Amino acid sequence: MSEDRIMMSHGSGGRISHELISNLFLPRFNNDILKKLDDSAVFKIKDNRLAFSTDSYVINPIFFPGGDIGKLAIYGTVNDISMSGAIPLYISVGFVLEEGFLMSDLEEILKSMKEAAKKANVLIICGDTKVVERGSADKLFINTSGLGVIEEGIDISGKNAKVGDLIILSGSVGDHGIAVISKRGQFEFEVEIESDCAPLSNLVQHMLSCTKNINVLRDPTRGGIATTLNEIADKSKVSIKIYEDKIPIKKSVLGACEMLGFDPLYIANEGKLVAIVSKKDASGLLNHMRKHPLAKDSEIIGEVTEGKVGRVTMKTLIGSTRILDMMIGELLPRIC
Amino acid sequence: MSEDRIMMSHGSGGRISHELISNLFLPRFNNDILKKLDDSAVFKIKDNRLAFSTDSYVINPIFFPGGDIGKLAIYGTVNDISMSGAIPLYISVGFVLEEGFLMSDLEEILKSMKEAAKKANVLIICGDTKVVERGSADKLFINTSGLGVIEEGIDISGKNAKVGDLIILSGSVGDHGIAVISKRGQFEFEVEIESDCAPLSNLVQHMLSCTKNINVLRDPTRGGIATTLNEIADKSKVSIKIYEDKIPIKKSVLGACEMLGFDPLYIANEGKLVAIVSKKDASGLLNHMRKHPLAKDSEIIGEVTEGKVGRVTMKTLIGSTRILDMMIGELLPRIC
Repeated sequence: MSEDRIMMSHGSGGRISHELISNLFLPRFNNDILKKLDDSAVFKIKDNRLAFSTDSYVINPIFFPGGDIGKLAIYGTVNDISMSGAIPLYISVGFVLEEGFLMSDLEEILKSMKEAAKKANVLIICGDTKVVERGSADKLFINTSGLGVIEEGIDISGKNAKVGDLIILSGSVGDHGIAVISKRGQFEFEVEIESDCAPLSNLVQHMLSCTKNINVLRDPTRGGIATTLNEIADKSKVSIKIYEDKIPIKKSVLGACEMLGFDPLYIANEGKLVAIVSKKDASGLLNHMRKHPLAKDSEIIGEVTEGKVGRVTMKTLIGSTRILDMMIGELLPRIC
Repeated sequence: MSEDRIMMSHGSGGRISHELISNLFLPRFNNDILKKLDDSAVFKIKDNRLAFSTDSYVINPIFFPGGDIGKLAIYGTVNDISMSGAIPLYISVGFVLEEGFLMSDLEEILKSMKEAAKKANVLIICGDTKVVERGSADKLFINTSGLGVIEEGIDISGKNAKVGDLIILSGSVGDHGIAVISKRGQFEFEVEIESDCAPLSNLVQHMLSCTKNINVLRDPTRGGIATTLNEIADKSKVSIKIYEDKIPIKKSVLGACEMLGFDPLYIANEGKLVAIVSKKDASGLLNHMRKHPLAKDSEIIGEVTEGKVGRVTMKTLIGSTRILDMMIGELLPRIC
């Protein structure tokens, strides 16, 4: 019997998480739908193409600038469903509550979930509540799963990036992770940084009204934009090259990252997406995206290239080329 | 601000859980699908009727006679989906793992989930893994959500019991709860009692092949058969009367209950169902059910009557009539 144990890095969303999934989960549960490992699973029931996704939320602290665990739990799953091009419809909620958890905090979180569901235009249609003894969980964990429908003519997947395609990022990176860590008590920031926590479903439909030819959509959460691009390069068997000077980042977030020694490209986002489209569609889509309130700072940040499969490189501000690996280890535990 | 706090009984599945759901959750998330509060939510996407359900599993201990948390997480959600008459198809899994959890235990649980999914004929198509620091969760919690399809002509809901209907129970009560508590270390039993943890989907389809006119299906988990019958009486606005001498119970389970001071009618089951059908269909269905390996001990245990709405009574062995309320408080925490 192996004496190996679960480490924090197994939940990082980076390299170690991927190894856990590839070595432990996939061999056991393997099937054609699961093995795509996109943000949501896509399948057909009769003539309907549906997208299904699940996420557990263990964020600490549960209230942070710009959101709370409830809002995050709704938007996070709405976003995962949206990344297949689906329109999210229905959400389930599962609570694990610690004995002694303040009812008033639960009420605030439920209120926030209600507002988030309304804003994202989804219905919460089933739920479950478990309670564990004091000390057997940290306050509360929330699982949300959800279902959406995909219209005809849409084929979006992490494996669809093609050499020559351009990469669009919908806005600034790192806001969520820095907002959360700013409230962990170890740090004091002069400027309050808010999480970008937002539902991307409306933005995705706005984009699809411009072109249905979107090849890849991803929301760069745990592991940040660097890890997300690595996943896409892996799945699509391509290289990716991005340009540091094109990546939007807020001054306050950059300042906090410099102070803390973090690379913003590995910091979680909760209201941003990466889209990969053919060169001919890219500038039209970019201009269309910039008209949407959640994507007005969109930029073309790079391109899909030939070269070593799975490799992501970045041309830095000073002109050198740097390899961007997946996140190794665990930078910021319990960020979502 | 209220200083009220979450208590263990909020997770019992009994009266206090119901109050939490009715007073806190329902007013906020209310919609026509959710408010039915059946074991699974039923809705239409185009012409397809689908059933969706979610459950988080926090059982302690994670390995118990007859099963483990992984098997339970698959069958539990499969069963909830089945209780709408749906054929379960797809399952999501969300893990919250405690740092330091033994990889070999995780492997064993995954193996068990794989076998359970195969046996229940469902595909695990998406998942999520989170890790929290040592002491922030107790070993692991698993959420499963799932989706099934409902064939034409089926209308099964907790609100459909009609005066004159008969109540069928598919087998002995209390096995799961007693099996779990037997491994908590406080007790020593002479006979090993196994959990009845099993997938009910095949049994439900077997029953529907006999008659589509099933009014209610429920699996009596947390809170036991007494709480389940109370829920049905409430929703259907009827009274229910059962006969103690008709309720199947294993000698070993009864013995353990007597020793521990538990009422077996409030103990959780994980492989039993309650069906409510019209008088004319009942004996045909009963005989058909007894041919299925999971329901060979089926009995007609009572009937739906006029009288005080929501009241459940039991004619006892000695001939008196006793009111069976919902479970109050928390009998056996973390039973599922």
